[in-house]
Amino acid sequence: MEITLILPDGKKLEVEKGITCLEAAGKIGSRLAKDAIAVKLDDNAVDLSTKIEQDAKFEVITFSTKEGRDIFWHSTAHTMAEAIMNLFPGTLPTIGPPIDFGFFYDFDKKTPFSQEDLRKIEEEMAKIIREDKPIARKEFSTADAKKLFAGEHNNPYKVQLIDEKSTDDGVGGNKVSVYYQGDWYDLCRGPHVPSTGRIKAFKLTKVSGAFWKADSKNQQLQRIYGVSFPDKKMLDEYVKQQEEAEKRDHKKLGKEMELFMQSEMIGKGLPVWLPKGNIIKEEIENYAKEMERKAGFLRVSTPHLAKKELYLTSGHLPYYAESMYPPMKLDDGTYYLKAMNCPHHHLIYKHKSRSYRDLPLRIAEYGTVYRNELSGALAGLLRVRMLSMNDAHIYCTKEQIEQEFENVVKMNVDYFNVFGFKDYYFRLSLHDSIHKEKYIDEPENWEFAEDVLRKALIKLNAKFIEAKDEAAFYGPKVDIQYKAVTGREETVSTIQLDFAAKTKFQLTYADKDGKENNEVYVIHRAPLSTHERFTAFLIEHFSGKFPLWLSPEQVRILTIADRFNDYAGKIRQKYFDEGIRAELDTKSESISYKVREAQLDQVNYILVVGEKEVNDGTVNVRTRDNKILGPVKADEFLSQLKEEIKEKKK
Amino acid sequence: MEITLILPDGKKLEVEKGITCLEAAGKIGSRLAKDAIAVKLDDNAVDLSTKIEQDAKFEVITFSTKEGRDIFWHSTAHTMAEAIMNLFPGTLPTIGPPIDFGFFYDFDKKTPFSQEDLRKIEEEMAKIIREDKPIARKEFSTADAKKLFAGEHNNPYKVQLIDEKSTDDGVGGNKVSVYYQGDWYDLCRGPHVPSTGRIKAFKLTKVSGAFWKADSKNQQLQRIYGVSFPDKKMLDEYVKQQEEAEKRDHKKLGKEMELFMQSEMIGKGLPVWLPKGNIIKEEIENYAKEMERKAGFLRVSTPHLAKKELYLTSGHLPYYAESMYPPMKLDDGTYYLKAMNCPHHHLIYKHKSRSYRDLPLRIAEYGTVYRNELSGALAGLLRVRMLSMNDAHIYCTKEQIEQEFENVVKMNVDYFNVFGFKDYYFRLSLHDSIHKEKYIDEPENWEFAEDVLRKALIKLNAKFIEAKDEAAFYGPKVDIQYKAVTGREETVSTIQLDFAAKTKFQLTYADKDGKENNEVYVIHRAPLSTHERFTAFLIEHFSGKFPLWLSPEQVRILTIADRFNDYAGKIRQKYFDEGIRAELDTKSESISYKVREAQLDQVNYILVVGEKEVNDGTVNVRTRDNKILGPVKADEFLSQLKEEIKEKKK
Repeated sequence: MEITLILPDGKKLEVEKGITCLEAAGKIGSRLAKDAIAVKLDDNAVDLSTKIEQDAKFEVITFSTKEGRDIFWHSTAHTMAEAIMNLFPGTLPTIGPPIDFGFFYDFDKKTPFSQEDLRKIEEEMAKIIREDKPIARKEFSTADAKKLFAGEHNNPYKVQLIDEKSTDDGVGGNKVSVYYQGDWYDLCRGPHVPSTGRIKAFKLTKVSGAFWKADSKNQQLQRIYGVSFPDKKMLDEYVKQQEEAEKRDHKKLGKEMELFMQSEMIGKGLPVWLPKGNIIKEEIENYAKEMERKAGFLRVSTPHLAKKELYLTSGHLPYYAESMYPPMKLDDGTYYLKAMNCPHHHLIYKHKSRSYRDLPLRIAEYGTVYRNELSGALAGLLRVRMLSMNDAHIYCTKEQIEQEFENVVKMNVDYFNVFGFKDYYFRLSLHDSIHKEKYIDEPENWEFAEDVLRKALIKLNAKFIEAKDEAAFYGPKVDIQYKAVTGREETVSTIQLDFAAKTKFQLTYADKDGKENNEVYVIHRAPLSTHERFTAFLIEHFSGKFPLWLSPEQVRILTIADRFNDYAGKIRQKYFDEGIRAELDTKSESISYKVREAQLDQVNYILVVGEKEVNDGTVNVRTRDNKILGPVKADEFLSQLKEEIKEKKK
Repeated sequence: MEITLILPDGKKLEVEKGITCLEAAGKIGSRLAKDAIAVKLDDNAVDLSTKIEQDAKFEVITFSTKEGRDIFWHSTAHTMAEAIMNLFPGTLPTIGPPIDFGFFYDFDKKTPFSQEDLRKIEEEMAKIIREDKPIARKEFSTADAKKLFAGEHNNPYKVQLIDEKSTDDGVGGNKVSVYYQGDWYDLCRGPHVPSTGRIKAFKLTKVSGAFWKADSKNQQLQRIYGVSFPDKKMLDEYVKQQEEAEKRDHKKLGKEMELFMQSEMIGKGLPVWLPKGNIIKEEIENYAKEMERKAGFLRVSTPHLAKKELYLTSGHLPYYAESMYPPMKLDDGTYYLKAMNCPHHHLIYKHKSRSYRDLPLRIAEYGTVYRNELSGALAGLLRVRMLSMNDAHIYCTKEQIEQEFENVVKMNVDYFNVFGFKDYYFRLSLHDSIHKEKYIDEPENWEFAEDVLRKALIKLNAKFIEAKDEAAFYGPKVDIQYKAVTGREETVSTIQLDFAAKTKFQLTYADKDGKENNEVYVIHRAPLSTHERFTAFLIEHFSGKFPLWLSPEQVRILTIADRFNDYAGKIRQKYFDEGIRAELDTKSESISYKVREAQLDQVNYILVVGEKEVNDGTVNVRTRDNKILGPVKADEFLSQLKEEIKEKKK
């Protein structure tokens, strides 16, 4: 008997009833069958061996999607667990999920795994993979499953998991699924790759401690992280990227270059900007201020605290309370550290009556907000507890949205050009009318606004994707996704349209007829993200080799002997007076030593001064990359420096 | 029999035993006797009628000292209380102390005093003063005094005060003193002026509500404020200054000029800088940054929070805890909002090993600190709960203190010249070796440092006074006292030398021999105070007429008719592109209306554009004070503007 499969592109495929998913995939294409990891049957992910008994939607899952990678990585985690149980009898596997990139598995084992253990485990895994063991799903009643894991494996963790029925999805009732590869088995809801041989390349990356159920009161466990690929080349590329990322790591460079520090006494997630890092932060801020001034933004400064009443009005309380710092009681009320700048800006909008002539009103601030992140989640400058955001809110009429949005996107693109970010795209997040509870109930506004944003992105020829059901509660948004040289994709900045503020804060204006109009739309935007995140991006992007305008030390003047110190000092003073960040090195060391030191410090231009330079009124210039530019008149080089800074050359 | 009085200048005066203080004053000079308000006998303030029975130190108290003014004002408060009891029978006086400037008295009375009441009270007071009633002290046992106030006066407040013995100082044991003027009397420890006629000029200034013992759970009281002088001219001058102060009041101008706002939803003491105020704040900050850059300061940014541990190390906890915001518990410890910037800067000093080559190390930051002020104590920008301080810390050796201190004083003077502050002096606060517990125990350092600061002030020809026993715990300090045009004296900025930080934070450096040296001295300095206070000073100093470089709106271009809008718009754009804060007024109003509006808005230059200007490529310039500068080529005027801004002309 024939049944009908509906493919993702809407095409129909007639197949024999009872055919396996893998066979069905083969009917679409042999390449696809080779790449197939699992299949979505009527939106449920199932193993390739699953037989198809009735008409269904049919979609092959490959490594190119997050879902496919998760299955692939989780299968690798199983293989690792088998290897470890072979090598370290008595070690109990607990849970081993896929993560953002790769997987981990936590084991109950007294002593941590050593680096040598990891190499042994990798060898054992390679053996299991070479054997290409078929992977098969079996279903058990809860009682039988408990016997299975309580018996031979003697694993109380799995028994607890079965009790919690955490694995019964897709099976229902009191059944749980177990995946076998040969004799070895693990509790798992699946799906999995069809055999261990599918794992063509893998690597165990690090070990760490963990706790059962992530609770420090529970049993301490040993965690191993790893990653795997269906192709050796992909692993090689990954390893190379990891090495590059490590070299560029902003935490490492930030410390070496003395850009920022952290202190146990100050606390976690609260970086201190050291003089050199502060220069970068201020250069970015000054640049933003000038760009925003030209674009008609007005700057304000709002306090870092507000009363509970403000956050009740904005709705941050109670919904966002967990991310906020604890409340502080003063003699006249309960205060919170600022969670967001928007409520403050709305009050500025409201502090006097506005007319149509005031719109669009663009209020900008490098505003500082506070997030009560868990200390374990903090990471260098990328995840902190106090952040200074390149924030602004544009208050405009419905008709003005398109132009304002377009201007914001253009400003973003301008910034990215200046910083040399090339690999980015826009993600337009839309609402989904099925999930009414998730989105503000203004269907016409949704349709209108999503259309306006889409049209603007098309008009600007921006590379973008659409993400349904990803909008904010109060309106559609556009995130700018940036792929760093290290391969990591991050949201750099975001533009959000807000229909809700006008009602919550009763934002109004007097229209041309003097009538009060409450159709005030708000665009939230932060093209340069926060100082913290953006500087982290920049450190990694430039690998510490900042362009001249951003560089903490732009010029260093080295003297060949003490008798040239006067001349060098005068040049340094002249440059410094003109705003150049120039330093002097008159140490009694060899010139090659001093050059090397300046190059390691990533000083853009190294100026050597000796007999000839003093006589000619020149400086002998080379770059940090040891490009020799030779002698130039000191004044002329100053002009060149000023020009390069002014143009923000990369 | 003769006894000997020792006068403040050390001279001795032989007088008859039993002479009154007033008579003794007359022997020094008849003018002094006339000005005498009371006398200090062996450092105790007593009435002029007091008889001198033995050798004593003798010092006449006049209105020129705070002590004299307090006695004078408190005597006036008594006179006001008598007037009120005459006019409003049944009204009970409670307490009526002198305050910073003037006095108040709180009365138990159901309804508030009206303005008309005040005039009546003033008339009645004038009558009592004309009668020149002698004021006399009598002492009673506690029991008798209670009868006196419980009886005729039926005043439970005074009875409570007697029970609390709050008035028995100077009498001792169970005696209390009562002051009579004629039949009327009040409980009081004194001293007082000898008769009501001494109050030559007075004024009741305002009424407000109050609570008994300042506790809102107690009885509501009616408060009247007043002020008085021994001379009518002084009152006239005071009234004039008050009017001027009111006109210049930064709260009033700040609101009118839209410089800052406050919001009930944000909370008290947390001003929001509106676009125009933010311009002033940023101009000041940019100026400070440039001055500090040139003076070799390195800028940092430190987080607004720190862990309890830091403030325990610095000693802010527990001693300063009341002024700090309540602690916040996060998952990894207890955090406080930053009370001071110094501990953070000390950590920056310590984050790497320092050598003698690094000193002096000057770390600067417009650092934000938080003060948990009572809501009732907050006032505009002058007293707030979050303040951004023009802070810096100079880490130096003992030998470097003098030069660094001198540089700091010079920078202060430079600033004051630029802002046009003329009426200021330095106050050198010294330790007092008698009060060992109040000062860090480093006698040599005290002597050395006080001497260095004094010498530097003399060398710089600075106007200064010395204030013994007014130093900080950790070292001597120099405050800069500024007398505003409104007559109010304020501490604008402060320079403090700190011997304690080196020990508390173990600040060290490697000296020339590579040995660890822990003699690191710290200079705290904040010449521009905080943004909040300094802007308040500037608003009042300039009465809102800011010099061009500080002005929120520097230029406004007015068109005579619509057909000149294009030309005006182009000029505005050109000026704006060159960084001038220029606006356009193309409203269809008469030019005189538009000029007047611009003048009221305190726009520095008003540029009128019509037929002639378009033809000649000029603008017709006048100032906010209506000085007509006439036609100038638009480009030429732009150059003039840029020059005036660059030179920070007043």
